[in-house]
Amino acid sequence: MKHTIYVVGIGPGKQAGMTLEAQRVLEQCDCIVGYNTYIKLIENQFSHKELLMTGMKKEVDRCRLVLEKAREGKTTAIISSGDAGVYGMAGIMHEVAAECDDVDIVVVAGVTAACSGAALLGAPLVSDFCLISLSDLLTPWETIENRLDCAAAGDFVICLYNPSSKKRADYLQKACDIILRHQSAQTPAGVVHHIGREGETTEITTLGHLRKMQVDMFSTVFIGNSQTKILNGKLVTPRGYTV
Amino acid sequence: MKHTIYVVGIGPGKQAGMTLEAQRVLEQCDCIVGYNTYIKLIENQFSHKELLMTGMKKEVDRCRLVLEKAREGKTTAIISSGDAGVYGMAGIMHEVAAECDDVDIVVVAGVTAACSGAALLGAPLVSDFCLISLSDLLTPWETIENRLDCAAAGDFVICLYNPSSKKRADYLQKACDIILRHQSAQTPAGVVHHIGREGETTEITTLGHLRKMQVDMFSTVFIGNSQTKILNGKLVTPRGYTV
Repeated sequence: MKHTIYVVGIGPGKQAGMTLEAQRVLEQCDCIVGYNTYIKLIENQFSHKELLMTGMKKEVDRCRLVLEKAREGKTTAIISSGDAGVYGMAGIMHEVAAECDDVDIVVVAGVTAACSGAALLGAPLVSDFCLISLSDLLTPWETIENRLDCAAAGDFVICLYNPSSKKRADYLQKACDIILRHQSAQTPAGVVHHIGREGETTEITTLGHLRKMQVDMFSTVFIGNSQTKILNGKLVTPRGYTV
Repeated sequence: MKHTIYVVGIGPGKQAGMTLEAQRVLEQCDCIVGYNTYIKLIENQFSHKELLMTGMKKEVDRCRLVLEKAREGKTTAIISSGDAGVYGMAGIMHEVAAECDDVDIVVVAGVTAACSGAALLGAPLVSDFCLISLSDLLTPWETIENRLDCAAAGDFVICLYNPSSKKRADYLQKACDIILRHQSAQTPAGVVHHIGREGETTEITTLGHLRKMQVDMFSTVFIGNSQTKILNGKLVTPRGYTV
């Protein structure tokens, strides 16, 4: 008999951002595993479940724990905030279970921060866009630099995940400098902080100003393309309709 | 008094793919406006509402209808499948209402096809990716070609929306030829058809084979980057963890 492991994206944070399917799957589980912060987001709702937390950088251990629980016969889910398939646990869970023919993995999609953040700012991502993480823990910085350059050269709207941290205080500035090779300093941009959580804020700015801003790791950054504009205080990328 | 207009992404199609927030907002509405196909996806669930449909290419008219209904004092939503902020109605609704100071627009994010399709294929989008629509109805084909070239040069995973239609039967082939300038023909790729709807299918292939495939407008296409591989029949882009 095969064990099913669920990899569930819980959306931006508040319960209302979860899909009905994610909620139903978690309700059916015996055991839910996740990074501390994400388990805390759901613990009130699922306090009757076995909730297991592991810390940051413990992703592989977390997946092994899920495998172990599933093999004990428990219906088990591993959660990510946002969508588990976008910088989330879906990939690493597939890798850890790659040699296990007694396991099926079911990924339940969620709303990623690009989408939940864009909704708060207006409609910046209505046209072609790129998603780039500025974290160089797992991707060499040269690869990230090249992607920033290519994305700006292609006049994509750019959404940045993990735009900063204590050790990487100047990465957003470096990223803006690369994008400024191709886009004007007046290009509209936006920052959303703590999407769907307590302390949620939005700020609309320009690429030139963003370069000087300090943002933290709980922020998602949006940089428009050559067509993006500010309409009634919202960041909007027109798609080309004649209004 | 300001009228609130809701722009709601209903997810891939099946009701379970909708967020709790989207469901709650639609339940509170008097009137729901949308493209025929999308209204049909929700009409059983919301049959007691005033449901108004308009046809393809009537996006501006649809937004004007929403504005009219909201000004009649009705709580009104306009829906998109997937996420309303990704090739959906959020942008054009902001544009149509740009001069209206009696209206507030609230966008409710949903799960876009990139995320729901990726979940079915495995975890192709776990690293940096680009989303590109191959429809040249609103974007010049030269812009699309440049974006494909830049995305492949940046070694992004690429997700293609609107990969084909009757009038654009060879666009996917053209897109693959551009990506093949930078990526090998063996690059893993995937196609998801009718995500979350009747007749949902997935197919895993290679970039070289995708070039010869015929897909329709109800398909979403995924093309890996240089790291993407096939694990246990699933399309997975490793993020760089040591497993």
